[in-house]
Amino acid sequence: MNTIHTMEVIHSIADLRSRIKEYRRNNDESVGFVPTMGFLHEGHASLLRKARSQSGLVVLSIFVNPIQFGPGEDFERYPRNAERDLQVAEAAGADLVFMPSVSEMYPTPIRTNVSVTGLTSRLCGASRPGHFDGVATVVSKLFHIVQPDQAFFGLKDAQQVAVIEQMVKDLNLGVEVVPCPTLREKDGLAMSSRNVYLTEEERKQALVLSQSLDKAKEFVQSRINFTTNELESLVSSHIATAPLAVIDYAQVLTFPTLEPFENSHHIDSIIIALAVKFGKTRLIDNVIIQLRK
Amino acid sequence: MNTIHTMEVIHSIADLRSRIKEYRRNNDESVGFVPTMGFLHEGHASLLRKARSQSGLVVLSIFVNPIQFGPGEDFERYPRNAERDLQVAEAAGADLVFMPSVSEMYPTPIRTNVSVTGLTSRLCGASRPGHFDGVATVVSKLFHIVQPDQAFFGLKDAQQVAVIEQMVKDLNLGVEVVPCPTLREKDGLAMSSRNVYLTEEERKQALVLSQSLDKAKEFVQSRINFTTNELESLVSSHIATAPLAVIDYAQVLTFPTLEPFENSHHIDSIIIALAVKFGKTRLIDNVIIQLRK
Repeated sequence: MNTIHTMEVIHSIADLRSRIKEYRRNNDESVGFVPTMGFLHEGHASLLRKARSQSGLVVLSIFVNPIQFGPGEDFERYPRNAERDLQVAEAAGADLVFMPSVSEMYPTPIRTNVSVTGLTSRLCGASRPGHFDGVATVVSKLFHIVQPDQAFFGLKDAQQVAVIEQMVKDLNLGVEVVPCPTLREKDGLAMSSRNVYLTEEERKQALVLSQSLDKAKEFVQSRINFTTNELESLVSSHIATAPLAVIDYAQVLTFPTLEPFENSHHIDSIIIALAVKFGKTRLIDNVIIQLRK
Repeated sequence: MNTIHTMEVIHSIADLRSRIKEYRRNNDESVGFVPTMGFLHEGHASLLRKARSQSGLVVLSIFVNPIQFGPGEDFERYPRNAERDLQVAEAAGADLVFMPSVSEMYPTPIRTNVSVTGLTSRLCGASRPGHFDGVATVVSKLFHIVQPDQAFFGLKDAQQVAVIEQMVKDLNLGVEVVPCPTLREKDGLAMSSRNVYLTEEERKQALVLSQSLDKAKEFVQSRINFTTNELESLVSSHIATAPLAVIDYAQVLTFPTLEPFENSHHIDSIIIALAVKFGKTRLIDNVIIQLRK
C-alpha cells in the first residue's frame, strides 16, 4: 500500500471480492484478515497490528453475526459504534474494512450449516447450543469472500480458535490461522466488547476471573502433578468470593483438543477456561499452560 | 494449454494447489472442475467436454468418497478402473486429473460437517441418511483445493445439484455450478457407474425407469393440471410391471426447491425422481419439467 495510508470502507461482497482480486493481480504479498463483530478495543487493534506486520493487505470485517447468537442472548443489544471502529481500524493499519448488512450476508434464509463436532461439546459449546455452528458458518463464508492467506484470532476465545483451526484443516481452507494473545486492562480484566455492560460494582468484582487464572497458573507451576478437581476447586472457590459472580463453567481441559482428564500426568498442554455471569453479562477468560516442552 | 495436449495426473493436494496457482499466474482464463467418483462413462465425458468448451484449464477429480456412503452401502465394491478413466479423461480433454488417496483427503478423522437442511430431507436424503452431508463436505473440500470458476455436475443426480447450488450460494463459494443433462444408453437407461452391477435380466427390466419418466412427461404435457398422486401412481404402476424392481421412492416435487405439492396449479417447475432397487443395485433417474415459462 501507499505510505500515505487510505483506508477503504466496503459494504458489498461483490465490491470486496473485486477490490481484493485487483490487489492480488498487482501484488505478490499476502492478504491478512481480521474478522470481528466490531466495537473494537485494544485487543482487536493488536490483531490488526499483527496483521499489518505480516500481510501486504489488511482486511478487517465488522459484522455482528445473528446466527451465532442463541434465543435470549444479546444480539440486539450487542454494542455497536461504527464511527469509533473506523478510527481504531485506521490507526491500527487496516486497508479494507468490510461492513456488510445482515441482508448482504444472509439475503435468503441460510440452509447450509458448517459444524465442528467434538471440540464444541464442552465450555461455550455446551452453554450456547448452536453458537459454534454459527461461528464456523460465518467464518467459512468470510474466508470464501476474502480468501485470505492469514487470519488473526484472539485467544480470549480459545475454543473458537480451536474450532476454526479444526475447520480449516478438515475443509482444506488453505488459510493460516494465527492465534494472538489476550489483551488485558491494567488491573487484569480481559478486554471484551461486552465489558461495557458491567456496572461499576460488577466491573470491580469481575477481576476474580483473571485473579483466579493467575492463582491456577501459580498452583500448576508449583506442582509436578495435579488433578483437574484440585485446579477447578481452586478456581471456583476464588470466583465465589465475588458475591455477584455466577459461574457458568470453570473447567480444565487438554488444549487444543479440549478433552477432559483426571490427572496432569502425561498431559502436554492445558486450558483453564471460565465463563462467569454478572447480572445479564457473561464474561469469558482463559489461560493456556504448556506443562511439558 | 498447448495444442499438443498433455494431461497430468496428480495425487497430492499440495501439488494440485501449486499446479493450479501456476496456471492462474500465467493465464487469465477460467478453471473448470469436474468432480467424480471415477469409473467414467459417457456422461462424465460429456461434463469434461462441456468444461473443455468453457474453461481454460479443465480439472477432473476421481475420488470414491467414503463419507458419502452409509453402513451397508457399496463403498468397498464401488467399481474402479483408473487406467480406463485416464483414457476417457484424456480423450474428453481433461488437463489435470486429481486422484487422491483416502488418507490424502482424510489424514485424520474429519470433525467438520457441512450440511444442507431442507433440500436433503427427501428422496435420496431420506433413503441415505448422511449421504448429502458427505457430498457437501467433500465438494466443499474439493472446491477449496481447486478453487474453480465453474464446476460441472450431471443432472442425473438432480438433488445433488440442488444441494451444491444451495451450499455455494449460502457459503459464498464463488463457483458457478453448471448443471448438465443426463446421458442415456440407446435404449434409454440413464448412464451410471453402477449399471455394471446389473445382471442381464435386471439390465433389461431397468428400462422401466426411463420408460415411466417418458410416460409421466407425456401425461404432464397432455394436461393443464394434475395432482402428484396421479403422476406418482402412473410412474409406480409402470415400474411395478418389472418383477425384479423394488421401488425405494417415486416422487414428484417442486424443482429446485424439492418441496411436495398436491396440485400442479401455480407450480413452475417439477422433478419426477425415482430410486429403484434391482437386487443389491440401486438405480436413480429423474426428469425435470418446466410447467410454465
